[in-house]
Amino acid sequence: MDLEQRLREKIDNLNKPKGSLGRLEELALQIGLIQQTLTPQLCHPVHLLLGADHGIEREGVSVSPRCITWQQMVNFTRGGGGVNMFCRQHGFELHLVDVGVDHDLSDFPQILNRKISPHGTANFLYGPAMTDEQCREALGVGSELVDDAAASGCNILSIGEMGIANTSPSSIWMSLLLDIPLEQCVGAGAGLNDEGIRHKLEVLRAAVAGFERSAHPSLSHDSQNTSDAAREILAYFGGFEMVAAVGAMLRAAELRMVVLVDGFIMTACALMASRLMPTFMDFAIFCHCGDESGHRLMLDGMGARPLLHLGLRLGEGTGALCAFPIVDSAVRMLREMGNFQDNQITKYF
Amino acid sequence: MDLEQRLREKIDNLNKPKGSLGRLEELALQIGLIQQTLTPQLCHPVHLLLGADHGIEREGVSVSPRCITWQQMVNFTRGGGGVNMFCRQHGFELHLVDVGVDHDLSDFPQILNRKISPHGTANFLYGPAMTDEQCREALGVGSELVDDAAASGCNILSIGEMGIANTSPSSIWMSLLLDIPLEQCVGAGAGLNDEGIRHKLEVLRAAVAGFERSAHPSLSHDSQNTSDAAREILAYFGGFEMVAAVGAMLRAAELRMVVLVDGFIMTACALMASRLMPTFMDFAIFCHCGDESGHRLMLDGMGARPLLHLGLRLGEGTGALCAFPIVDSAVRMLREMGNFQDNQITKYF
Repeated sequence: MDLEQRLREKIDNLNKPKGSLGRLEELALQIGLIQQTLTPQLCHPVHLLLGADHGIEREGVSVSPRCITWQQMVNFTRGGGGVNMFCRQHGFELHLVDVGVDHDLSDFPQILNRKISPHGTANFLYGPAMTDEQCREALGVGSELVDDAAASGCNILSIGEMGIANTSPSSIWMSLLLDIPLEQCVGAGAGLNDEGIRHKLEVLRAAVAGFERSAHPSLSHDSQNTSDAAREILAYFGGFEMVAAVGAMLRAAELRMVVLVDGFIMTACALMASRLMPTFMDFAIFCHCGDESGHRLMLDGMGARPLLHLGLRLGEGTGALCAFPIVDSAVRMLREMGNFQDNQITKYF
Repeated sequence: MDLEQRLREKIDNLNKPKGSLGRLEELALQIGLIQQTLTPQLCHPVHLLLGADHGIEREGVSVSPRCITWQQMVNFTRGGGGVNMFCRQHGFELHLVDVGVDHDLSDFPQILNRKISPHGTANFLYGPAMTDEQCREALGVGSELVDDAAASGCNILSIGEMGIANTSPSSIWMSLLLDIPLEQCVGAGAGLNDEGIRHKLEVLRAAVAGFERSAHPSLSHDSQNTSDAAREILAYFGGFEMVAAVGAMLRAAELRMVVLVDGFIMTACALMASRLMPTFMDFAIFCHCGDESGHRLMLDGMGARPLLHLGLRLGEGTGALCAFPIVDSAVRMLREMGNFQDNQITKYF
C-alpha cells in the first residue's frame, strides 16, 4: 500500500465520522505527502517579508505614495505592523529583507540588505523592469533565503511583500499567464477609486502593448516554451520582491517545504512558480482569497481553493499567517487524534 | 464621541490601509463593544462540551448508534477526540458535562454529572421531549456552568455538543423559528444516505404535526408572544444539551462574554437564544458554516456571517474552536498594532 493510501486510511480511522473534518483532512493528506510520513510535523515556521519599489509607481497606479514602502519596512522593525502581530501570535520568525527598496535602510540592521538595485525596478511602461541578470540575481536571493531558513530547521514557509504598486505587475502576470483580459485582472489595490482603476488599466495596457511589440520569439503558444515565456514575463514586469518570492517558492518546493501562499500578489508569484515548475502546486497551500478584483479568478484559473475568505487586503503576508492555525490543526489531527480501535468506540461507518 | 465611534477611529488609524484587515476589523469593533473598551482582552477561554441522548434517536433518524454519545464522552476524557486537540492547540479549558447521556458515567470524574434525566429526553414523536420543569433545570445548568467559568476569569466561551440524533431537533427549531419548510432544514447529519434523509424528514414531519395538534395557545404570530412560542418549541423538541447550551448562551450574554458559535446544532441554539433575548446576537460570533444542508439557510435567516467555511461536520464545537485564532487576531490588532502617528508613516488615506 503506498503512502497516499496509508494516509487516507489513517485519516478515515480517526475517531470522527469519515470526512467530518473537511478541509483539514485534505490538508493533512497534502502535508503527509509533502513530508512523506504518516506523522508530519511543522517545525520552525519562517515568514519572509520581501520589500522593493517599482518603477511603474511613477505612473500613478497606486493610491499610496512610494515612501510607504520604506516607512513600513522600518515600521516592521519596531514590531507595530500587522505582520508583526501575526508572527508573534503564531510563532513565526520574521525575516525582513530589502531586495530593492528605494531608500537607504542601512541604519536598520534588522533589515537584511539584499538590494538588487538601490532604487527598485525600472518603469516597465518604457521597457523591461529588470535585466536578465537582475532577474537571476533576485531568484537567487529568494533561493538563498530559503536555504538559510531550512538550515535553522524550518519546514514551513510563509512569504509576504511590501512594495507600493505591486498589484500592477501581479495583474499583468495573471493576465498573460492565464490568458485573461487585463480588465478582469486589475482592481483597486490598496484603495483606488473607479477613475484610478481606469487610469491603472490604461497604463498597464500600454505596458503590455510595449512588451508585445518588443521581440519575444519564445512567446508562442507552443507548450514546450511555456517556461521560457513565463521567464520573459517574470523579468519584464516583475518587482524584485516578486521575483525573489518566486525564487523562494521554487527552492522551498525543492526542499519539500510547506509553502503558505498569501493574497493577490503572492498568488501571482505562485502562479509564476507553477509555470516554471508545475510540481510547485503540490507544496502550496492557498491561504486566503481577498477582495482584490481578480484574485478569485486567478485562484480558479489555477485550480486553487483558498482556506479563508476574510476580506483581508493588507498584504505583508497577513492572509497566509492568518491561516496557519488551520494548517497546524490538520497536522495535529494526524498526530494527536485517537482512532476507533484505540478508543473502543463502535466504528459506525 | 461614543465608544463605537472611538473604536472605529482607533481601527481606522492603525498603520494599514483603511478596512484592509476586513473581517478582523469588524470583530475588533464587536469585541470592543462587548467589553466596552478600546483595548479588549480575551481571558481564560472555556469550552463547554455538553452531552445528552435523544428519544427521537429510537426512530432511526441518525446513521450513528446511540452508544456513540457515551463512548465519545469517555473518549474525550482520554484526550483523543477532535475537541481535545483543538482545546490543547488554542488554550481552551475543556469542561465535559453530562446533562442526560443514556449511560452511567460516574466512573469518569472528569465528566461533570448534571444529568437532567438518566436516559436522555423522551421521544418527541409521541409528545414533548421534556417537561417544563426539566427545561428550566437544563437552562439553569447551562447558566451555572457559565457562572463557574466566569468565576475563574473566563470572558470568552465556546460551546460544543455530543448527542446522537441532535441534528433532528435542530432542524425542527430552525424550521419553526424561521418559518422555513422542514425539507429545507433536514440534512444528512453524520452521514445518512438519501433514503435515510427521506425517512428522517418523514419522522420529523410527523413529530411537528403532533406538536401542532397539541394545544399551543401562545403559538400565534403575534410578535408579543414570540418568546413564549420559542419556549414551547425549546421544551417540546430540545435535547438537554441543546437547552443547556441555550441557557449558557443567555447567561454568557448577560455577563457580556464573547460567545463562539459552532455548527448547525449550536447555530440552532443561538437562533433560539436570540428569540428569547434579541441582544444575544451582539455577543455571538458565528464561526463556521458546515456542509449540513440548511446551515447556510439558517445563518442567512439570522443575518449571521460565519468566519470559516471548511466543510467541518464533526460537532463537539470544533468549528468554533477552529475560528478562535482569528478572533484572537482581531483583539491583538487593537492591542498590538501601531498607528500612523506613532510610527511616523505618511497617512495616505
